[in-house]
Amino acid sequence: MKIRSYKKDSDYSYTYGAFATIELLKLRPSQVLRVFVHSDYKDSDNPAKLCEANAVELVLDDRVFKRLGHKENIYVLGVFSKYKSALSPLRPHVVLVNPMDMGNLGTIMRILAGFNILDLAIITPAADYFNPKTIRASMGALFNLEIELFPSFEIYREKFFSHDLYPFMLDGEIELGKDPAPKSSLYSLIFGNEATGLPSYFKGIGTSVKLRQSNLVDSLNLSVAVGIGAYLFTIVGD
Amino acid sequence: MKIRSYKKDSDYSYTYGAFATIELLKLRPSQVLRVFVHSDYKDSDNPAKLCEANAVELVLDDRVFKRLGHKENIYVLGVFSKYKSALSPLRPHVVLVNPMDMGNLGTIMRILAGFNILDLAIITPAADYFNPKTIRASMGALFNLEIELFPSFEIYREKFFSHDLYPFMLDGEIELGKDPAPKSSLYSLIFGNEATGLPSYFKGIGTSVKLRQSNLVDSLNLSVAVGIGAYLFTIVGD
Repeated sequence: MKIRSYKKDSDYSYTYGAFATIELLKLRPSQVLRVFVHSDYKDSDNPAKLCEANAVELVLDDRVFKRLGHKENIYVLGVFSKYKSALSPLRPHVVLVNPMDMGNLGTIMRILAGFNILDLAIITPAADYFNPKTIRASMGALFNLEIELFPSFEIYREKFFSHDLYPFMLDGEIELGKDPAPKSSLYSLIFGNEATGLPSYFKGIGTSVKLRQSNLVDSLNLSVAVGIGAYLFTIVGD
Repeated sequence: MKIRSYKKDSDYSYTYGAFATIELLKLRPSQVLRVFVHSDYKDSDNPAKLCEANAVELVLDDRVFKRLGHKENIYVLGVFSKYKSALSPLRPHVVLVNPMDMGNLGTIMRILAGFNILDLAIITPAADYFNPKTIRASMGALFNLEIELFPSFEIYREKFFSHDLYPFMLDGEIELGKDPAPKSSLYSLIFGNEATGLPSYFKGIGTSVKLRQSNLVDSLNLSVAVGIGAYLFTIVGD
């Protein structure tokens, strides 16, 4: 098995580092093709046991890591088949419309896992969620989530017609945390991309939500907005 | 004036890029020593006007940018004298105990400016808040804030004895957003560092606060925790 530099259209991807590889082995064991460990890796018990338990081949091979040519030192590498997921119609969703930054996308995955929102819709075009950079930014939290791509918001909407829709917009109708909280337990929190937010089209959809912010900065960091939205909806819905 | 690579003990620092340099010129004009502009910079009106208005020398010089040797292309560079600030005793504070990551520190500065918390206490040892990397991560929001260093939390506490203290801890007494919200309008939100959080000592101080989170991730991203805390305190206190 040759390790090539990752490409968006390849049917496998990589976890860089022990932490994400262990998450992969725990959460998606049937997808794992192979795990490589560098001879300098000191704490190899955990991936080794998980590989054994799941009949995954573990290979000691330093050259693989050299060929990766990564800036940081990486001593564990997982190789896995990409897989398709389907969102649950019975659980809340976060919908990201055209997210373009792999680091942000990974950070958001970790936030959602932290707040128990386990279904993520991504409207394309979007950053590649299986890119090793995204997985690394998620610290393996990607493997906790069901992630589904949709070519347009309308197609998402047709499939999940029972979800109450809450687009997050600078000029939203309700101010989150101040106005009476939405009582829905089956909701979709919708966020635009880093640079432009959601187009005004979304004002006509569901109940638009804003976060109060000062005029000192032009917009909030996307992952912080998702974090506040996900936190407040999950804690109020409880 | 020679541009040397930044050092923590130098008495000046740099803003990389037009955005942060314009924030510097608008918010701290008397600290600016000089602004350099690359001949490839197309939209030079704004820094030029601000320099003129504030009697700051603007220098067209491409070699300065070459010497910086920065990965990204930078076409505007501000040079400014570091300055000392003092926190207001009449406004809420955020207190960061030993923050160690310059990127996180800058991101948090931008979040605080976004939610109108303009006073930041940093307990040392800590990442250098005047490092150009921190300033860049803050997108210039640093210049909106009063920032004061304290060698220990006790010394901070002695100076600001009227603030109600809210340490954010994994095992905090109240759950933010769910339990009745604190009514204080003069408060200090206290956060530990990225790796270890706050030591248990802080359980005995004020009212400890937790954010509800799943067991799928071991801890929340520090800047997301600060974002949620700052948002909920400012919106409830209103």
